[in-house]
Amino acid sequence: MGRWQPGTRDRLHRVAVELIRTHGYEATTVADIAEAAEVTERTFYRYFADKREVLFDGQELLTSAFVDAVAGAPAEDQPMQLAAAALDAAAAFFTTERRAWSRARQQAIDSDPALQERELLKLAALATSLAGALRDRGVADPQAGLCADAALSVFKIAFTRWLAPGETRSMADLQRETLATLRGLTTDPGSRRRGDGRTMDR
Amino acid sequence: MGRWQPGTRDRLHRVAVELIRTHGYEATTVADIAEAAEVTERTFYRYFADKREVLFDGQELLTSAFVDAVAGAPAEDQPMQLAAAALDAAAAFFTTERRAWSRARQQAIDSDPALQERELLKLAALATSLAGALRDRGVADPQAGLCADAALSVFKIAFTRWLAPGETRSMADLQRETLATLRGLTTDPGSRRRGDGRTMDR
Repeated sequence: MGRWQPGTRDRLHRVAVELIRTHGYEATTVADIAEAAEVTERTFYRYFADKREVLFDGQELLTSAFVDAVAGAPAEDQPMQLAAAALDAAAAFFTTERRAWSRARQQAIDSDPALQERELLKLAALATSLAGALRDRGVADPQAGLCADAALSVFKIAFTRWLAPGETRSMADLQRETLATLRGLTTDPGSRRRGDGRTMDR
Repeated sequence: MGRWQPGTRDRLHRVAVELIRTHGYEATTVADIAEAAEVTERTFYRYFADKREVLFDGQELLTSAFVDAVAGAPAEDQPMQLAAAALDAAAAFFTTERRAWSRARQQAIDSDPALQERELLKLAALATSLAGALRDRGVADPQAGLCADAALSVFKIAFTRWLAPGETRSMADLQRETLATLRGLTTDPGSRRRGDGRTMDR
């Protein structure tokens, strides 16, 4: 079998996902993954730095989806519309078939503080990339950072809802609903009516 | 000198801050800090796990400020008002006298990826604490998470602005202005007018 055979990475990833989904992250070893993919462990390590890397494989695709959606959005789009376009583009990754894998992945992450840290850092990097894409579209600061953070907050919270047991709605729908909830919170008339000095939008 | 003399921790911290502010983080050693505080290095390590810990010393106070402000806010406050109260309470830490130290601290963090990661994780922990305080006040999900994330985004962005060279406005003012900008972004009428299927607030 060729050392850099095209598709080896994809096959390793698919096999790893299936093993982790079925047996859990802890119980799945690199040896198991390599065996199921009919390659050596050494080959696994040519494509992934470690077993953890399988869990974070989608990061680059997700970043590209965010950045490309912002770059390709209509010229007249306002900052939050650009962020919304990024979220819609990202939703395409989270298909119904992916949900079982995503749940197994999340279970692994939730059980390991080091993986939780890695996930947080990856999400922060995603926000930084999105803010950069917004700036490239002429969005000023602090608007670019605020929109990027808002989008990541919506993404993260919608993703948690999407993973919940029994949830069947699509990631796109959950993101839209969560963004609408955020809009409702920040436009809450109660916070504009106050005049006691603690209201922050004066 | 007593081993657990009251005030030793504060003195170590004050001295460390002053040395780091004057000479920079890299050039300041634990030996320098101990010497200036007239204690042994061993004493330093009784209070701080390492030199980095000096940079993150305010975390607990900041968390308490956030959580206490939410717990103590008027019963009729809406979720974003609670988050705003948390931000106002946190602003009290960032006095004019503190600005030079905060700038030196940020310079140290910006120059070291490991410190940047630590800062990101501390901010994420702050968001988790704030979301918990909001839930304790009866705020449901996903509102609690969205408000906490929005508050942390405002905090982080206002803090960066507060640190900018020549900036003289208070942290409280910058947070209020940044929150007002966020409100403006999320209520942008442009994003409600669209009907092409990409608008996310339907």
